[in-house]
Amino acid sequence: MNFLNETFHNQLDLTITIFQNKYYKKFLHELVSGQLDMDRLDYLKRDSFFTGVNEGVIGEDRIIKMLNVRNDSLVSEQKGIYSIERFLTARRLMYWQVYFHKTVIASEILLENLLLRAKDLAKQGVELFATPSLHYFLYESYNLNRPEDLRTAINHFINLDDNDIFTSAKEWSTHTDKILADLSQSLLNRKLNHVEISDHKIDHNRNEKISNLILKRYNLKSRKDIKYYFTNNIISNHTYAPTEENIRILMNNGDIKDLHEVSDIINLGGLTKITEKYFLCYPKEITEF
Amino acid sequence: MNFLNETFHNQLDLTITIFQNKYYKKFLHELVSGQLDMDRLDYLKRDSFFTGVNEGVIGEDRIIKMLNVRNDSLVSEQKGIYSIERFLTARRLMYWQVYFHKTVIASEILLENLLLRAKDLAKQGVELFATPSLHYFLYESYNLNRPEDLRTAINHFINLDDNDIFTSAKEWSTHTDKILADLSQSLLNRKLNHVEISDHKIDHNRNEKISNLILKRYNLKSRKDIKYYFTNNIISNHTYAPTEENIRILMNNGDIKDLHEVSDIINLGGLTKITEKYFLCYPKEITEF
Amino acid sequence: MNFLNETFHNQLDLTITIFQNKYYKKFLHELVSGQLDMDRLDYLKRDSFFTGVNEGVIGEDRIIKMLNVRNDSLVSEQKGIYSIERFLTARRLMYWQVYFHKTVIASEILLENLLLRAKDLAKQGVELFATPSLHYFLYESYNLNRPEDLRTAINHFINLDDNDIFTSAKEWSTHTDKILADLSQSLLNRKLNHVEISDHKIDHNRNEKISNLILKRYNLKSRKDIKYYFTNNIISNHTYAPTEENIRILMNNGDIKDLHEVSDIINLGGLTKITEKYFLCYPKEITEF
Amino acid sequence: MNFLNETFHNQLDLTITIFQNKYYKKFLHELVSGQLDMDRLDYLKRDSFFTGVNEGVIGEDRIIKMLNVRNDSLVSEQKGIYSIERFLTARRLMYWQVYFHKTVIASEILLENLLLRAKDLAKQGVELFATPSLHYFLYESYNLNRPEDLRTAINHFINLDDNDIFTSAKEWSTHTDKILADLSQSLLNRKLNHVEISDHKIDHNRNEKISNLILKRYNLKSRKDIKYYFTNNIISNHTYAPTEENIRILMNNGDIKDLHEVSDIINLGGLTKITEKYFLCYPKEITEF
Repeated sequence: MNFLNETFHNQLDLTITIFQNKYYKKFLHELVSGQLDMDRLDYLKRDSFFTGVNEGVIGEDRIIKMLNVRNDSLVSEQKGIYSIERFLTARRLMYWQVYFHKTVIASEILLENLLLRAKDLAKQGVELFATPSLHYFLYESYNLNRPEDLRTAINHFINLDDNDIFTSAKEWSTHTDKILADLSQSLLNRKLNHVEISDHKIDHNRNEKISNLILKRYNLKSRKDIKYYFTNNIISNHTYAPTEENIRILMNNGDIKDLHEVSDIINLGGLTKITEKYFLCYPKEITEF
Repeated sequence: MNFLNETFHNQLDLTITIFQNKYYKKFLHELVSGQLDMDRLDYLKRDSFFTGVNEGVIGEDRIIKMLNVRNDSLVSEQKGIYSIERFLTARRLMYWQVYFHKTVIASEILLENLLLRAKDLAKQGVELFATPSLHYFLYESYNLNRPEDLRTAINHFINLDDNDIFTSAKEWSTHTDKILADLSQSLLNRKLNHVEISDHKIDHNRNEKISNLILKRYNLKSRKDIKYYFTNNIISNHTYAPTEENIRILMNNGDIKDLHEVSDIINLGGLTKITEKYFLCYPKEITEF
Repeated sequence: MNFLNETFHNQLDLTITIFQNKYYKKFLHELVSGQLDMDRLDYLKRDSFFTGVNEGVIGEDRIIKMLNVRNDSLVSEQKGIYSIERFLTARRLMYWQVYFHKTVIASEILLENLLLRAKDLAKQGVELFATPSLHYFLYESYNLNRPEDLRTAINHFINLDDNDIFTSAKEWSTHTDKILADLSQSLLNRKLNHVEISDHKIDHNRNEKISNLILKRYNLKSRKDIKYYFTNNIISNHTYAPTEENIRILMNNGDIKDLHEVSDIINLGGLTKITEKYFLCYPKEITEF
Repeated sequence: MNFLNETFHNQLDLTITIFQNKYYKKFLHELVSGQLDMDRLDYLKRDSFFTGVNEGVIGEDRIIKMLNVRNDSLVSEQKGIYSIERFLTARRLMYWQVYFHKTVIASEILLENLLLRAKDLAKQGVELFATPSLHYFLYESYNLNRPEDLRTAINHFINLDDNDIFTSAKEWSTHTDKILADLSQSLLNRKLNHVEISDHKIDHNRNEKISNLILKRYNLKSRKDIKYYFTNNIISNHTYAPTEENIRILMNNGDIKDLHEVSDIINLGGLTKITEKYFLCYPKEITEF
């Protein structure tokens, strides 16, 4: 952010001050980073439109119209409560139904594993095709505490995009390292892993069983390679996180209350806990029965 | 309903049995009368479309797709939870923002008071113009426990619609009874009362003050006539009533749980209490300061 | 309009001057009454929304944005041509698909015939129930050239609405005049005539045949009564009428041209002819084979 | 297409026969390639949705519902005329307002010029970074009449996508060839040329003037290099091309007519002429006054 500010000749001073919540008008920080910030309103609307998930529709106009400032802090008028409830449930729905959709999880993990494999090969000294910026992150050693490294790394990072990944994956898809080639082909052909989501921690035995099946099926040389094919992890939902500041409601009588005190439907219990789900992600060929 | 069945030569036997929840497939009764019945889905969708309240949009397709039957009872699959949360918050929003809109409340009360005044005049023997079916309800005495009276009353009731009311109101608008004429003109010219909604019971003194102002302003002969101009009442929200059967969720592991046990956002506290708001409805001309 | 102006103490002077095209800014008249006037944009949008005919959607925002004034006359910028073509085709579609829908035609004709029958009976001195304003038009003789009659007639006309019609029809539905009772019941029960639309004039023989069938089927006393059941008429489309002023386009080079000169799709031939279709409207019970 | 068929073990035989219009059911060919083919309906709908151009909305459901087959040829029922008019005007609007939007034209030309420059440098023997498939087309000589070349070319062509282009452009953006570097940077930074559209052929002098300005401004060594910065060309609209088969309407009386015979709005004149517009595309820095 500071490098950006340099590039723009300090025109971002105010923006950065607000962003870091050091500006004296605190409500501006809430507008860019809070439970009801403008970014959240924007991406919910955009994503529900483009994914065709009509249920994610929110009344951003009305939410914004209900916003006000009291004691240097964002508040919503009391009659905006229902729109905020709609926003919070829309957000939850979009998270669990879209952002945590099995296809999204499997895609992200495939991408991670592909880069992980490339990085591991690079560490072992295997020479891989890579676009210059990707090459930097695979092969160079850098120390982000040193300003000159930081600057170079940022420049390469900015330059990286999906073009670098896909172009490299196209090359890697015919590489002699079977794992790298496998993962590259999967990415290019949208051959995604199966994802299993559960409310409960995955049983250790089940884990072992899948690991062994993968070891055998993919003829892996080492148990350490299982991780490129099999992921066991957690997704969690931050709908209305207790560590952040609450959404405040300006009551008709002038009082200011927290949303959960005045909404009959928003659950205080739900606020203080982060919902976590457990998932397994493994190739569709693996059948366990 | 039974008269209807006669008219249709008992073709409604099954329908009535389901409606009265005497049919052996209990889930059919839940589909026509429950917390998640088809009528609720239908009118929410219709009303949010025609009122232009986009926030009321629900994913009825997905809700229906998630429905299943277990132990002769409607359940929703676990991944349908978010859509049901959306449905419940949409319902709440539509109630407080549309169905309990001040214009709706004022209109309903005006209609009630107009008919109340007409009925009171009829009781006093004043002869009013009225369409035949309206005339029956204003002037006839009937005993609904007597089958022939019930049948006549039902036929007149079915025949009544807004045409009877408006046609009569047009006539009444020039009647010598000032109250009847006043209320009729208000109905015809959409001259609606002011509505004041509050979370708290209205203070007795305030009540008295408004009553006195009305008495004076409209030159009423008796305090009993204040009721035609001034209403002090309660609206309450039945979003998810505790006395009805809960919405049940079929968990991924086969368990069946109540919605409030598994939704992080739906508040158990909110479920067991009916939200009530207090309102005053009085002519806009009345100013109290 | 002039009576209205009196009521409003001449506040409508300017409006009326514009409406009568006597105001010096001629383009204002085009905005309220022209081929591209605001009323047309408004009702097309409204009607396509509420009828659910998505095809009638128009880009009224863009059309308005493209409007400009040249030589005291409305013009559209050249790049607005496509939006205007969309508007004209939407209008055509709405006319033939919605406004001239068989249900609409049959309803209008039923209403006309019912009032025609009531009027004819009134002329014969038959006393019918009627709300006061409807009674005026059925039984009073008035001369609209006499100011006092005109004023009375206007007041009664303004007071007339569907409540008067439906309330009267409810009464008439049990009248001893079989035709009046028949038509009233049809109106109340939405029992509409069949409508047959054709590009060609209806053959005289076919006309005769249907007339005779109706005469017999409804046991009519006179051939003159056939008209209450059977209508043979024309509907015509005024999409872009040649007698009105053309839509003018402001070309990029500053020239002003008529729409049909610069649109490749809007047909000059089509402009100068009014499309007419012939229709028959008769009871569904009448079968001719 | 034949290679694809091989890959799919001749499962595409029927598809190809239909596509080449050699199948005995001729109307199937019209469904995949005609004035009213399914692809056109599909992309209009998709593009108007994603570009937010509501005016492009068409009633594809109704158009399809109105389709029928007569004499082995697609026809639309007469009452589908208005929907087809809507489709044709939507298509025209989308072409001139979206597909021929200045941003689209400038982007396409920039892409063409970048590849043209790369190809020209490759021909001169300059070695450029290129992904393998792009490298093939830049440097290899192939003869598409030779089956083995055709097969290789097709495989490389299939493998090419925007990743190859953007990855190469990122590399080229720092190349010593100033033109290549310029165009690459323009592509990466969305720095698009100005586009000027006109109904008339561009005046020769104007053309010369801009050419000279570019020559000077970009310090070009040769007039031949102007083409990388400056394009003077034609866009044309194929809304309803006269050389293709007409859309046929099945009249209510059983006759089959061409659309332009029965639509009052679709212009025969417009059908037989292809609308052409002239455009200039040159850098925004070039100012001519």
